[in-house]
Amino acid sequence: MHFTSEQHLDDGVVEREFTLGEIPGTLWTPGSAPAPLILMAHNNGLPRREPRLVARARYTAARGYAVATIDAAGCGDRPRSAADDRARADLRRAMQAGEPVDEIFESFIGPLVEKAVPEWRTTLDALLTLPEVDGPVGYSGWTALGIHLAVTEPRIAAAGFFAGGYVPRAQREEAWQVTVPLLFLLQWDDEGNPRQRALDLFDAFGTKEKTLHANLGGHTGTPWFELEDGGRFYDRHLR
Amino acid sequence: MHFTSEQHLDDGVVEREFTLGEIPGTLWTPGSAPAPLILMAHNNGLPRREPRLVARARYTAARGYAVATIDAAGCGDRPRSAADDRARADLRRAMQAGEPVDEIFESFIGPLVEKAVPEWRTTLDALLTLPEVDGPVGYSGWTALGIHLAVTEPRIAAAGFFAGGYVPRAQREEAWQVTVPLLFLLQWDDEGNPRQRALDLFDAFGTKEKTLHANLGGHTGTPWFELEDGGRFYDRHLR
Repeated sequence: MHFTSEQHLDDGVVEREFTLGEIPGTLWTPGSAPAPLILMAHNNGLPRREPRLVARARYTAARGYAVATIDAAGCGDRPRSAADDRARADLRRAMQAGEPVDEIFESFIGPLVEKAVPEWRTTLDALLTLPEVDGPVGYSGWTALGIHLAVTEPRIAAAGFFAGGYVPRAQREEAWQVTVPLLFLLQWDDEGNPRQRALDLFDAFGTKEKTLHANLGGHTGTPWFELEDGGRFYDRHLR
Repeated sequence: MHFTSEQHLDDGVVEREFTLGEIPGTLWTPGSAPAPLILMAHNNGLPRREPRLVARARYTAARGYAVATIDAAGCGDRPRSAADDRARADLRRAMQAGEPVDEIFESFIGPLVEKAVPEWRTTLDALLTLPEVDGPVGYSGWTALGIHLAVTEPRIAAAGFFAGGYVPRAQREEAWQVTVPLLFLLQWDDEGNPRQRALDLFDAFGTKEKTLHANLGGHTGTPWFELEDGGRFYDRHLR
């Protein structure tokens, strides 16, 4: 793990870019060390530099957590293949034409999740060797990745998922194997995410300790107080 | 309003029984005065002395709110009519036999809500004359009563509803007129409360600022942290 830049933010949080082999990532750490770690990923492999994710990460770090994110293969700062570009173009075309996009998402997001999980685990190994990072480990964000990670990675102790990304068949089918405490966040009127599908997924999670928070509004309209509620969820399970 | 008993609790909360005409009630006030008021009612007109309601009221008062509850006509400490007894017996018999109970609930709870709302408004008038009680006013608990109260009583500024009681047709139909900020609490596996009906009701509320919290488990299994979440909801809207 090589740190390539370091920025000191107002509230004592240190924001560092890193590379780990081919994987580019960002680590936020609070002033106080060592801090429990939260892995934070955007739905559908959106770039780790996206302002909404960065804002969540900085808030969470200021609350006393180490927060890390990486770009998935073909996403963010990483080189795109011709196949990635084709899939994105297909998706855009289908959405503009109002055609069903499930199969395109399935063929694009399914492999993305499968490939991303080993990289997140490698990143987790590296992060836990740092003196400023400690267990237990939480997860926040991208539902599909979080399901596969929670099922395959026993160090994940609590997870907060955002409904609203495409969840591939394989992850819907393994959702019952998620047994860690779970906070599931749903935007009631999310344009791209059928509500019933999200409610079915909440129902399917195997954990006995799961909470659904639903708020009115579209995909990006999550109210600010959910950030605090999420923080308290992690406080209950990671401290 | 006549106070008939007064008890000082450990955390500075004062618990007083009162009568207002025929209406028996309880008022909890915090050490600091004046405090914003929360009207707290149990689903389906359950007795105001029921330990779960009392625990919620004491917690909420210790958090800095004046909390008041009254018994509905025919409930709690109030005389029951022969018709009340008959309705309760019918309900018990139907539930034991596994028969549908909607029509019995409708004929029992419908009039109960209609009769209760003017009593709560009278109580509210009396409470707001007390120096230790202040606006704005919140509501917590019984969904059907809360809907009718929020629709008819403009002093209600925020409401927390517990799904899980029977909501009469009239209240389902006026739910769209509820326009105050709303926290709607659902137990995902509530034996007596069809989940879809609760989700439909959440969808029907007219307010733009509504949040659903759902947790795994049966009717009485609401996790303790929802009490804190509820407290923060009122803090956001009544302070």
